[in-house]
Amino acid sequence: MLVLITYDVNTVSPGGKKRLRHVAKLCQRYGQRVQNSVFECIVDQTEFMLLKLRLKEIINHERDSLRFYKLGNQYISKVEHYGIKSSLDVEGPLIF
Amino acid sequence: MLVLITYDVNTVSPGGKKRLRHVAKLCQRYGQRVQNSVFECIVDQTEFMLLKLRLKEIINHERDSLRFYKLGNQYISKVEHYGIKSSLDVEGPLIF
Repeated sequence: MLVLITYDVNTVSPGGKKRLRHVAKLCQRYGQRVQNSVFECIVDQTEFMLLKLRLKEIINHERDSLRFYKLGNQYISKVEHYGIKSSLDVEGPLIF
Repeated sequence: MLVLITYDVNTVSPGGKKRLRHVAKLCQRYGQRVQNSVFECIVDQTEFMLLKLRLKEIINHERDSLRFYKLGNQYISKVEHYGIKSSLDVEGPLIF
C-alpha cells in the first residue's frame, strides 16, 4: 500500500536538519521524497509498523510533527501533481 | 471527502512567503493547516475542482510543487499523528 508521510521539523532548531536527513534516508528505502518533507512509501503492514516505530524513535516529539496517511493499493488515481517535480525521479518507483 | 494538499514552496524565493500565505488562506476555508505546508480539506467534487483551479492560479509552476491526495470519506482510520500538534485546533473540523 501507499503510505504518505509528512514531517514538519524546524530545521533551525538544534538537530532539526539532522533529524530531517535521518527521516528522509529511512523513508527513501521504501519509496521516494516527493517534496522537501513529504515522502511516498510503498509498504506492507509489517514494513509500515517497522517504519513507523523507527521514525518515532528519530523525531523529537516535543518539537516535530509526523503524520501518516494510508492511501491503500489503488492509489494512482488518488494523487495529482502540479508545478515542479522533485529533483529526484519522483514518479519512478510508483510505476510498476 | 478529505483531500490532503501538500505545497512545497521556497519561501526564500521572491514572493514565496506571499504565495504560501495565499495557499494557506484558501485551504483554510475548507479545512485546516496540520503542518506548515500541509492542509486537510473537506470538500465535495465541485469544491475540489474550484479549490484546485484557484490554487493552480496562485502557485509559481516553475518554482513550487503542489500535490493533492484524495482520501475519500472514510478517512479517520487512515490518518495517524505523532509529535506536536499545530498551533491551530488541527483536529477540530474533522470531528462531526
